[in-house]
Amino acid sequence: MAFQLPVYHHPDFSALGLDDAPNVRWGTVEQNGVIPEGFHSTSMYPEYFKIDGNWKLAASSRMDACIVLRDDGTLHVVTGRHLKQGDLVALGRSEDGSEGIYVHTDGFEDPTASNGEKFSFRQGRSRETAYTRDYDDLIELLQYERDHGFIEWVMGPAFAFDADSRHAMQRLVEEGYAHALSGGNALATHDLEGAMFHTALGQDIRTQQSMPNGHYNHLDTINRVRRSGSIAQFVDDYDLHDGIMYACVKKSIPFLLAGSIRDDGPLPETIADVYESQHQIRVLARKATTVICMATMLHTIATGNITPSYHVDEDGTVRPVYIYAVDASEFVVNKLHDRGSLSAKTIVTNVQDFIFIVAKGLGVL
Amino acid sequence: MAFQLPVYHHPDFSALGLDDAPNVRWGTVEQNGVIPEGFHSTSMYPEYFKIDGNWKLAASSRMDACIVLRDDGTLHVVTGRHLKQGDLVALGRSEDGSEGIYVHTDGFEDPTASNGEKFSFRQGRSRETAYTRDYDDLIELLQYERDHGFIEWVMGPAFAFDADSRHAMQRLVEEGYAHALSGGNALATHDLEGAMFHTALGQDIRTQQSMPNGHYNHLDTINRVRRSGSIAQFVDDYDLHDGIMYACVKKSIPFLLAGSIRDDGPLPETIADVYESQHQIRVLARKATTVICMATMLHTIATGNITPSYHVDEDGTVRPVYIYAVDASEFVVNKLHDRGSLSAKTIVTNVQDFIFIVAKGLGVL
Amino acid sequence: MAFQLPVYHHPDFSALGLDDAPNVRWGTVEQNGVIPEGFHSTSMYPEYFKIDGNWKLAASSRMDACIVLRDDGTLHVVTGRHLKQGDLVALGRSEDGSEGIYVHTDGFEDPTASNGEKFSFRQGRSRETAYTRDYDDLIELLQYERDHGFIEWVMGPAFAFDADSRHAMQRLVEEGYAHALSGGNALATHDLEGAMFHTALGQDIRTQQSMPNGHYNHLDTINRVRRSGSIAQFVDDYDLHDGIMYACVKKSIPFLLAGSIRDDGPLPETIADVYESQHQIRVLARKATTVICMATMLHTIATGNITPSYHVDEDGTVRPVYIYAVDASEFVVNKLHDRGSLSAKTIVTNVQDFIFIVAKGLGVL
Amino acid sequence: MAFQLPVYHHPDFSALGLDDAPNVRWGTVEQNGVIPEGFHSTSMYPEYFKIDGNWKLAASSRMDACIVLRDDGTLHVVTGRHLKQGDLVALGRSEDGSEGIYVHTDGFEDPTASNGEKFSFRQGRSRETAYTRDYDDLIELLQYERDHGFIEWVMGPAFAFDADSRHAMQRLVEEGYAHALSGGNALATHDLEGAMFHTALGQDIRTQQSMPNGHYNHLDTINRVRRSGSIAQFVDDYDLHDGIMYACVKKSIPFLLAGSIRDDGPLPETIADVYESQHQIRVLARKATTVICMATMLHTIATGNITPSYHVDEDGTVRPVYIYAVDASEFVVNKLHDRGSLSAKTIVTNVQDFIFIVAKGLGVL
Repeated sequence: MAFQLPVYHHPDFSALGLDDAPNVRWGTVEQNGVIPEGFHSTSMYPEYFKIDGNWKLAASSRMDACIVLRDDGTLHVVTGRHLKQGDLVALGRSEDGSEGIYVHTDGFEDPTASNGEKFSFRQGRSRETAYTRDYDDLIELLQYERDHGFIEWVMGPAFAFDADSRHAMQRLVEEGYAHALSGGNALATHDLEGAMFHTALGQDIRTQQSMPNGHYNHLDTINRVRRSGSIAQFVDDYDLHDGIMYACVKKSIPFLLAGSIRDDGPLPETIADVYESQHQIRVLARKATTVICMATMLHTIATGNITPSYHVDEDGTVRPVYIYAVDASEFVVNKLHDRGSLSAKTIVTNVQDFIFIVAKGLGVL
Repeated sequence: MAFQLPVYHHPDFSALGLDDAPNVRWGTVEQNGVIPEGFHSTSMYPEYFKIDGNWKLAASSRMDACIVLRDDGTLHVVTGRHLKQGDLVALGRSEDGSEGIYVHTDGFEDPTASNGEKFSFRQGRSRETAYTRDYDDLIELLQYERDHGFIEWVMGPAFAFDADSRHAMQRLVEEGYAHALSGGNALATHDLEGAMFHTALGQDIRTQQSMPNGHYNHLDTINRVRRSGSIAQFVDDYDLHDGIMYACVKKSIPFLLAGSIRDDGPLPETIADVYESQHQIRVLARKATTVICMATMLHTIATGNITPSYHVDEDGTVRPVYIYAVDASEFVVNKLHDRGSLSAKTIVTNVQDFIFIVAKGLGVL
Repeated sequence: MAFQLPVYHHPDFSALGLDDAPNVRWGTVEQNGVIPEGFHSTSMYPEYFKIDGNWKLAASSRMDACIVLRDDGTLHVVTGRHLKQGDLVALGRSEDGSEGIYVHTDGFEDPTASNGEKFSFRQGRSRETAYTRDYDDLIELLQYERDHGFIEWVMGPAFAFDADSRHAMQRLVEEGYAHALSGGNALATHDLEGAMFHTALGQDIRTQQSMPNGHYNHLDTINRVRRSGSIAQFVDDYDLHDGIMYACVKKSIPFLLAGSIRDDGPLPETIADVYESQHQIRVLARKATTVICMATMLHTIATGNITPSYHVDEDGTVRPVYIYAVDASEFVVNKLHDRGSLSAKTIVTNVQDFIFIVAKGLGVL
Repeated sequence: MAFQLPVYHHPDFSALGLDDAPNVRWGTVEQNGVIPEGFHSTSMYPEYFKIDGNWKLAASSRMDACIVLRDDGTLHVVTGRHLKQGDLVALGRSEDGSEGIYVHTDGFEDPTASNGEKFSFRQGRSRETAYTRDYDDLIELLQYERDHGFIEWVMGPAFAFDADSRHAMQRLVEEGYAHALSGGNALATHDLEGAMFHTALGQDIRTQQSMPNGHYNHLDTINRVRRSGSIAQFVDDYDLHDGIMYACVKKSIPFLLAGSIRDDGPLPETIADVYESQHQIRVLARKATTVICMATMLHTIATGNITPSYHVDEDGTVRPVYIYAVDASEFVVNKLHDRGSLSAKTIVTNVQDFIFIVAKGLGVL
């Protein structure tokens, strides 16, 4: 059964008794990067602000940002540290419209759905949960998004450790199922080590056999990429022909490598400033329609905080953004559990097996 | 590449300097179920006992049992509680032959293997380990064992919760990849609930949708099996046609259901006495050549303690017994980690994904 | 601040609109251990049954049992397998009174409590949850229950592995903070090994140093207890003077040792039949007013299923039964999470540290 | 028993047969931040380099760095990215002296220690390990290091969530048991939220009660610190008087806040550039003699990679650096498991309980 986008319902403000709600109030930024007291903090849900008597939807919301009103009447979702002196920032801490701010949490819900279904969606998910339908749904979703959406993969380094999962991810990129990749320095390092030495941290990625002096492999890889000056140049210099980064280079898929304090190197493309990394994650989040976070608590939470639950297309259509968190640990996936029923799914498994099953299901292996 | 059984090497007692080792000493049991002080406790490795100047191998050893010498000169591995007054029990607490007892831990090791390989086998395994080769090896092994060995599956209830993994397991049984199943009352209960109601604990096994009053489904299932008098009769009475227990009934594959203190019911076949269950697990362990333990710490440890690392065929050939422990938790699989390098493998993943990948690899899906 | 028992409020059936509710229907058992179709299955909450126009509370409910009406008009909560031919069993599968069955889930809730509080109680709990208040509450509760209640400790074997936690538990028993212990064969075995050899599985319980041939220690311990014939006799025969079992023997605190398929031995007191063990757990559950389950998924779930959320004192007063689940794994404690807000608490930590802090807080160390 | 520093034994190069070992070779850096091929990569152990016939110890080694020889004959441990054109870098990939490089892994080992002890030290550690001796040892160590060493605490945010553990940490700082703190933006944010609002992420840190609109508390806290311009100024501006950061400010204990991609804010002191953070962690690592990493995989690994296993005092004395990793997850602590037996300890528990027990043991509560 092919995937069907759910229809978005704008709030009926009259039915909500909000015809007489006041306009939202605005405060002025006095100091760069400091928000006026009483500011409104955004959620990942669609939010409406009453301005001159009209309710206006802010596009591309995220957790914990501000709403800025520009002179041209447009609304912008801006992080506190990016505020400039003189910016107008929405004030108010209620979400029910009584201060001119309305947070719309159930715009994609089907009013005909039974309560039983809602309940089951909100239950905890663990290693014992049945994921058959989740795999089926995800495969249908990816088939749709490949041509009509923007699929972002957020990845921990584990993928590069294992020949089969590394190959599965390469094939997904090659076959169009990735519009962007987001990860850290280690993901690219170990993947490129695999391309150059067929190892990850010195162990053969197929047999797990430790190579003599194999712990030098990732250091030699990093050092050579630094000498080449870029990953693309390195792939060319050493005539590499497999792996995740190779596929991104070949298919011109953008990848975002956020630096971390545990990095070796780093690789030339890795971003040293975490707030610049966060900004680039946000740039992707504004485009993404499906985000799959795998085996990285840090990137999963960073991305989850920044990604809206909805996307406003150029023609004004509002559609959901689907977020998946896949991890071997219940603790990690539960960190995303309260994003609401429709948009976030969690799967507790080894990500190597996950990606293999997804790639098989999509027929790319 | 097809699977090759490793060759077993008996110890060279002369080369070990054991030509003058004493005969093993024996003590006499004075009270049923109580062992003489100073008894020798067995391991899962092949053990040799010097009797009348000859070293004799005990077949089918296990952890923490006694060696009994019968009047006909045969050696038997007997649990302490099964000892009878008058039994002769081997005494001695060294394993190097100096008391006539020699434990042979490396009979299957290839003396030409490099140290590097050995080291890599003994490293810790986690969710980040590369399992590509393990899957490849396991699939080759199962193809061999299907016709030449005895494959025992030890299963927690999680398999029955998910439509795909339940079907994968059914197919493995139907296609000859299971010679016995071992689990608990819950595995059979939830699998039969799936056959009767398409649910597990009231949730649809494909969609996870909670059925109205679905928490009654497993109680009704148990109650009806109890009325039918047996699982086979229940399958017939209600004309069921899918699932793991259904496949076992249809293919006459023996299943062992050990009772536990958390059981509802129980089902008629469930064994109430844990030491009788342990005995039946031991009966299977004497036959098994490959044992795959999935998602059950209790049964994994119980089986691991009882299963030898080697099997003596009727013609006297000694071959390894392969044990796998598959679980989402490193904590669980590490409980089996010290069974020695050749015979025990651990895989950290969601068992639903594991069984799906194995079944795909064997071509039964 | 001293602990205060919350007041129980019976349902107001008139206010619930149940004045015209029908009497509950009854079915007759036709075959021992088989329940009539359409039976009502109990919960751990107080349940009321309308008989001859009056609503009657069943005492000591539990999950998944039946309600039997005896000739003398009394109600009994009976497991399906204990039903006898001719027993009258309550029928009906709604819980709102419409079939004469009313399940009262909020009898202990304070109607003046704010919604905010309720919400916070129901949130997931993890290793990052703040437990300061839980420790404070638990210590106040134990001080109260020591003299006015019945405290049952349900324990995995981990306590016996560590000198400090083993001593803390011994002190709690000695000072009156335990009215019963429930665990498995391994708990008693390792504790007694500690008393005889100062080791657990051969490692010194204070220094972790492995003793030469220490793996024999638990086997020798078991064997000697079996020779002595009972734990009490063994403590006397070998003049032991520390540990958890020693304290129970000295203070005549009952202990329940349920057998499992992974047992060595077993010890003489260990119960081989799991359904007899379950029955004995149920006997304790009828008495218990506070139950603390630590580091054992099997016993925690078994006990949780069987323990009511309320206790009816001899004078008819209804009070809550408090259940705690303490474990290092979120997965385990979450298994108990849906027992309702007031009665079940979960704490994610190492149980050795937990018991040390509790014993310190109670001033027994 | 008071803590005793183990004695360090330099290698006996003659006894090792290394009298005729060659001098180490050197390569010249041709491009800033790019290492010559064949470079030697350092470990955390003491390493000796043969120069002009003499073996010379490099101070303050770390994982995966280079050895640079300055014109004055001194050796420096330098990260690849900090190399400058013209630097001389040690070449060679053997560690046994045969290329003039000797890695000394057992300088602190007592040659009289038995093998049994060594083996027990290297066993895996889990939630079931006995930690009694570890607590005793750690408390003695901290008593010694308070006056004679440099204690660094590496902390995840969990400490600030709980009133008791936050207070315990405050007391340790106040009583001289911390010479530096290292963590992230979230630790300081939630701790300061606790000082200002008595909440963490909006929940009361003692009662867990959710405050109305409490999710604004951490945003308001961050915003106000940004307005104040520094944490110290914020503490002063709002007259705060409790918590971890408060104690650091009051006692002038340096704290290092490394930024991450999941940060809100950030606070003014938080370092945005991860490689500058890594450098500051390294500056601390050169001073530290005991490092305790708690509940943060990212910082634990980052710190572990960078911290030597030994410290060379100003008078040339070589002493061990003790590293502890404390976490609720075996997976996290095992990441540090192979740093060698003497210097690294792992404890699996909830860090809130850990710090409470440590503070109690040191008598500061």
